[in-house]
Amino acid sequence: MTMAQRDSSAPKRDTYTPDSLLAVAVAVFIERGYDGTSMEHLSRAAGISKSSIYHHVRGKEELLERAVGRALDGLFGILVEPGASGGRAVERLEYVTRRTTEVLMAELPYVTLLLRVRGNTTTERAAMERRREFDHRVADLLKSAVAEGDLRGDVEPRLATRLLFGMINSIVEWYQPHAAGTREHDDAAVVDAVVRLAFDGLRVS
Amino acid sequence: MTMAQRDSSAPKRDTYTPDSLLAVAVAVFIERGYDGTSMEHLSRAAGISKSSIYHHVRGKEELLERAVGRALDGLFGILVEPGASGGRAVERLEYVTRRTTEVLMAELPYVTLLLRVRGNTTTERAAMERRREFDHRVADLLKSAVAEGDLRGDVEPRLATRLLFGMINSIVEWYQPHAAGTREHDDAAVVDAVVRLAFDGLRVS
Repeated sequence: MTMAQRDSSAPKRDTYTPDSLLAVAVAVFIERGYDGTSMEHLSRAAGISKSSIYHHVRGKEELLERAVGRALDGLFGILVEPGASGGRAVERLEYVTRRTTEVLMAELPYVTLLLRVRGNTTTERAAMERRREFDHRVADLLKSAVAEGDLRGDVEPRLATRLLFGMINSIVEWYQPHAAGTREHDDAAVVDAVVRLAFDGLRVS
Repeated sequence: MTMAQRDSSAPKRDTYTPDSLLAVAVAVFIERGYDGTSMEHLSRAAGISKSSIYHHVRGKEELLERAVGRALDGLFGILVEPGASGGRAVERLEYVTRRTTEVLMAELPYVTLLLRVRGNTTTERAAMERRREFDHRVADLLKSAVAEGDLRGDVEPRLATRLLFGMINSIVEWYQPHAAGTREHDDAAVVDAVVRLAFDGLRVS
């Protein structure tokens, strides 16, 4: 259902779960920007009254907190999976690259919102801080893989990490999760392409 | 000078050139979004009256047109340079990758604005169309390099092009053009890192 259809519908009974209300809010945040979204906009998009929304959450900042929290929990969860914890650093980094791409596609709106957060509120600043912490953990893994002789040492690790995340995060610009069957690239092909290009590049070796 | 400083200053004499007025407008478009920018915002940021701005341009859409035109002219200019026109496709693609990164850094605000354009006006739709045309030209080059046996054929060319541009374009998220000397990575290091990672990947070959 599109926003426009929701807008034109009569107020409906509040059958929202925390997750389904969050999904509506995140779609509005992405469309209007978090700063540009009011409780009135959320009420209209959800098709329930503002007081019904306040029955679920204290306000829009709590919705933002849950949304970016969901994205960050997904990302940090990767780091404690067995594939990220044992073996050579290069294998762990390859695993983290693969899983980060999968989490981005599985949690697309939440990760999209996380990537757009700019730090005007406490919640936004905390989210940026956790995102930086994730980036640093990955940069450390990359450094270890360089030290172990598996990754090239002629690109500064922080810069390499930035470009690696740049490639992965750019997927939010064009990936369409609901177009399964008709979509241009299937999920596994996207994940494989990211890993191949990141580690071995475009050139025939 | 920051926007805030401009805002608090008294109206000044109009000594703008087309380029210097454009630079102010682009900074406001990036900060507020094109849709969220009024002539009043532009007038305040420039420190001159709205009628002075109308002396230079017909309105804000003309400013947008010039700004994204500057970015697009920079990008299309690359394709007619000798390095992009002769030799094996892989060498031409490597040249275009290097130069695209250089143009992005040299024309940072204009390219940033181009990347954010979403297509609500004729100017925006035309800019998106030209940007897609540039992407197609690069995808064709990539296909030729695969056909010549220099690039891997196991990643779909359109997907490879998207990930390549994803990596390059992500530089706008963190690159600081005015921090020369104190900036984290120097320009040549960024360009070299993009070319190395895109073509040969992170792994030691």
